[in-house]
Amino acid sequence: MSREVNLNADMGESFGKYRIGDDDGILEVIQSASIACGMHGGDPRVMAEAVDKAKARGVSIGAHPGFDDLWGFGRRRIMMDTKDLEYLVIYQIGALYAIAESRGAKVTHVKPHGAMNNMACEDNAYARALAGAVKAFDSDLIFVTVALSELAKEGEKQGLKTAIEGFADRTYDDNGMLTSRADPTAVIKDPDQAKDQVFRMVEEQAIFTKGGIRIDTPVHTICHHGDEPTAVAVAKSVRRSIENSGTFDLKPLPQMSLN
Amino acid sequence: MSREVNLNADMGESFGKYRIGDDDGILEVIQSASIACGMHGGDPRVMAEAVDKAKARGVSIGAHPGFDDLWGFGRRRIMMDTKDLEYLVIYQIGALYAIAESRGAKVTHVKPHGAMNNMACEDNAYARALAGAVKAFDSDLIFVTVALSELAKEGEKQGLKTAIEGFADRTYDDNGMLTSRADPTAVIKDPDQAKDQVFRMVEEQAIFTKGGIRIDTPVHTICHHGDEPTAVAVAKSVRRSIENSGTFDLKPLPQMSLN
Amino acid sequence: MSREVNLNADMGESFGKYRIGDDDGILEVIQSASIACGMHGGDPRVMAEAVDKAKARGVSIGAHPGFDDLWGFGRRRIMMDTKDLEYLVIYQIGALYAIAESRGAKVTHVKPHGAMNNMACEDNAYARALAGAVKAFDSDLIFVTVALSELAKEGEKQGLKTAIEGFADRTYDDNGMLTSRADPTAVIKDPDQAKDQVFRMVEEQAIFTKGGIRIDTPVHTICHHGDEPTAVAVAKSVRRSIENSGTFDLKPLPQMSLN
Amino acid sequence: MSREVNLNADMGESFGKYRIGDDDGILEVIQSASIACGMHGGDPRVMAEAVDKAKARGVSIGAHPGFDDLWGFGRRRIMMDTKDLEYLVIYQIGALYAIAESRGAKVTHVKPHGAMNNMACEDNAYARALAGAVKAFDSDLIFVTVALSELAKEGEKQGLKTAIEGFADRTYDDNGMLTSRADPTAVIKDPDQAKDQVFRMVEEQAIFTKGGIRIDTPVHTICHHGDEPTAVAVAKSVRRSIENSGTFDLKPLPQMSLN
Repeated sequence: MSREVNLNADMGESFGKYRIGDDDGILEVIQSASIACGMHGGDPRVMAEAVDKAKARGVSIGAHPGFDDLWGFGRRRIMMDTKDLEYLVIYQIGALYAIAESRGAKVTHVKPHGAMNNMACEDNAYARALAGAVKAFDSDLIFVTVALSELAKEGEKQGLKTAIEGFADRTYDDNGMLTSRADPTAVIKDPDQAKDQVFRMVEEQAIFTKGGIRIDTPVHTICHHGDEPTAVAVAKSVRRSIENSGTFDLKPLPQMSLN
Repeated sequence: MSREVNLNADMGESFGKYRIGDDDGILEVIQSASIACGMHGGDPRVMAEAVDKAKARGVSIGAHPGFDDLWGFGRRRIMMDTKDLEYLVIYQIGALYAIAESRGAKVTHVKPHGAMNNMACEDNAYARALAGAVKAFDSDLIFVTVALSELAKEGEKQGLKTAIEGFADRTYDDNGMLTSRADPTAVIKDPDQAKDQVFRMVEEQAIFTKGGIRIDTPVHTICHHGDEPTAVAVAKSVRRSIENSGTFDLKPLPQMSLN
Repeated sequence: MSREVNLNADMGESFGKYRIGDDDGILEVIQSASIACGMHGGDPRVMAEAVDKAKARGVSIGAHPGFDDLWGFGRRRIMMDTKDLEYLVIYQIGALYAIAESRGAKVTHVKPHGAMNNMACEDNAYARALAGAVKAFDSDLIFVTVALSELAKEGEKQGLKTAIEGFADRTYDDNGMLTSRADPTAVIKDPDQAKDQVFRMVEEQAIFTKGGIRIDTPVHTICHHGDEPTAVAVAKSVRRSIENSGTFDLKPLPQMSLN
Repeated sequence: MSREVNLNADMGESFGKYRIGDDDGILEVIQSASIACGMHGGDPRVMAEAVDKAKARGVSIGAHPGFDDLWGFGRRRIMMDTKDLEYLVIYQIGALYAIAESRGAKVTHVKPHGAMNNMACEDNAYARALAGAVKAFDSDLIFVTVALSELAKEGEKQGLKTAIEGFADRTYDDNGMLTSRADPTAVIKDPDQAKDQVFRMVEEQAIFTKGGIRIDTPVHTICHHGDEPTAVAVAKSVRRSIENSGTFDLKPLPQMSLN
């Protein structure tokens, strides 16, 4: 039975003169930030500024590697050689590692972005490449993976510290996968329902599907988004509820009990 | 009086399906390789393969950061904010650092590429940004700089282990700068003349200009190129002469006495 | 004596998921839009949407080519081969030409962006390449150039229909060049002063410098910006003043008397 | 019964300092060249040079649009919005159109590249977007499509001049599709067998599968490759055989009877 939970979000996805996401707003909510690494978003300066901000608030830092696809913001599915994929991820982790190092900060987790994440949740070859990238660079890094996904399985199998992620604002189908966004019930817009889902997942360490099925799984961290005003509002409300309940401790990923 | 010298070259500048440079040929000559980091050339897989090859031959590995300019192969001068420049260089060093780490190898030096290098040789603000990048990430990295340049001065000033570079196949003007390629006497094409220039620079620890002036400077490493067949041939002949003479030991940069 | 004037602005500079500029706001002001062509900003879809919007409002369309530098938003100065530059500009004009053609619209002018524009205002080789690009593709295109610049001279010299541009919100130094932004007096923030400058430039067909010098030059079009809320507000106020005065007709570039 | 045939190949796929393909060699063989448009390969200067070379030899010119994926050389499958895809293709056709126009040449066909082509052969939504792009820009352009593919069907359906393409050096499965390269019998390496396949396809206007099935289809043009020395050799031998046989006339695509 878990007495702790982590709130995470992506940040540092701006690029050059282009701004995206409310990094300052979401930093008031989360304990761990996944920072874009310059491929689907982010650039060296944006990365440095995101690291500084996270560090200043005691928020732990992770790499958020994505496909080399700025136009698609890493959301287009790309079929690629899995060796190239592994190296692409190591490259990005290293880029953020050095930026962090130069700001007196540490990269402590890795969470894949967008289509790369989605494909690797389903496709074991991609999952193996991603877990393999983390392991090859630094096997002490925490690997943040969607509950019940191929990524979660590969993280465990390759012996990585694997943090399992649940979603506050998304429903699950009866296979325990996120309901497709094409489905009108995919997104939970009611803050109370979102909050309830979080409490239930963390207290019971299980996913509850739309069909009413319970599927046991660790749930260490809850994913939030900073790129929509409503998402930040929901996230703040979830955080307040957790704090007010006194049920769980909010912890950065490196302070959590994993594996 | 120096009894040691290093031969260095760039490598890993291919990109995707595009091949460039004779990496295998130049690896028979050099003790230290500067590997492109994915901006002016190189990609994650090319970097991994270059690291593997260098490691297999006992050749020490450095990062070869360039402008974010694949079309121009990093040879177009770009005027940019020096903070952006510093972060851009840290980003690239980190990317290679992680690739190397994942292959059981170490990055031990940094040598800027092309227009970034040329501009920083002349412009102190750029030189400061580049030396600052190295220092901010890892002040133990060796900083490879053109003799008598702003980069060399900044390396020393910022307390970096600074390796001073001379050229086998380029002439120097009376300010100690490389003669502009626009000048027909800029490139030394005669292998014997190239070899003589190397011996003289290393033995006397000085640059000798076209006008016959001697300028004292340390000379730790000699730059070769792998992207032209003739350059590889000249490089091989220089290496053989050094070996046959028994005058100097050929050493990877980390084994040299610097500063 | 001119009884007509054009208001122009850049638009379509968003990229992928990144939004920039208030295209809808500025379209209420201008008669001619310069649309980014996918290099410093813009992408094929953004270009199509910008063309549709401009067409719907009867705003004439121009290509806004920039350096291949999305990170720098085309604002970093890049020293490049002038043949490459010429082809780079033709490429971009053609890309917009085809997008416009497919939407039932026409490209009728070309105005270079950012650092490319700035460099070509000063450097005749760049100016020649840019005017040459326009001429080589379609010598009927209107070439929009900063008053008194090398671009304006080359446009005339190469026989292009050359529209001369003045600025509402920038001061001029005594050479007739825009005061550097490093200078605190560079930008005119007072809407009334901006409006007065516009009227004076257009009525007298001359530039007036900070030092009080008058330099005669045609002034056909006034540049506005859509990427800052205040700029849109100033632009709207300038337009209203012109309409209320009844002094000039506001015309799209192709309807103006040029050369 | 056809008395004419076209030989086509891709060219202009070099990028910046990177060279790829034997453009000069393949130009001795073909009557129509598909020139890369700067996304999967090619750059503005390479495009201009390819246009000049093709024009000088009387070889007709087509656009060869690909995914925006230089790293993958356009060979990675990318799942994308079909509106974005349509605009991406129009953009590329226009870029080449302008380069050609500026060199006194015309773009007369469009042939998609690599993964974009492969996906659109199978997926009707992609095929519709590609045919739609051609139609939206210029419905007189010839659309070059793989025999029996969704692209061929869409080209006909949308009323485009559709040229059907057969392969000299690839076998067909019993559905009339190219045998997957994973299959060892996919590639025909024997020049005589390649030549026989070409003659049979063109004479009988049909595809013959590995299983011995004959599938009727027009065959207007035969695809060759310039990126492997052996491919150029095979192509030259096919051309010689056609010339010696006196059976067919070799024609540029715009001179052929289509639809």
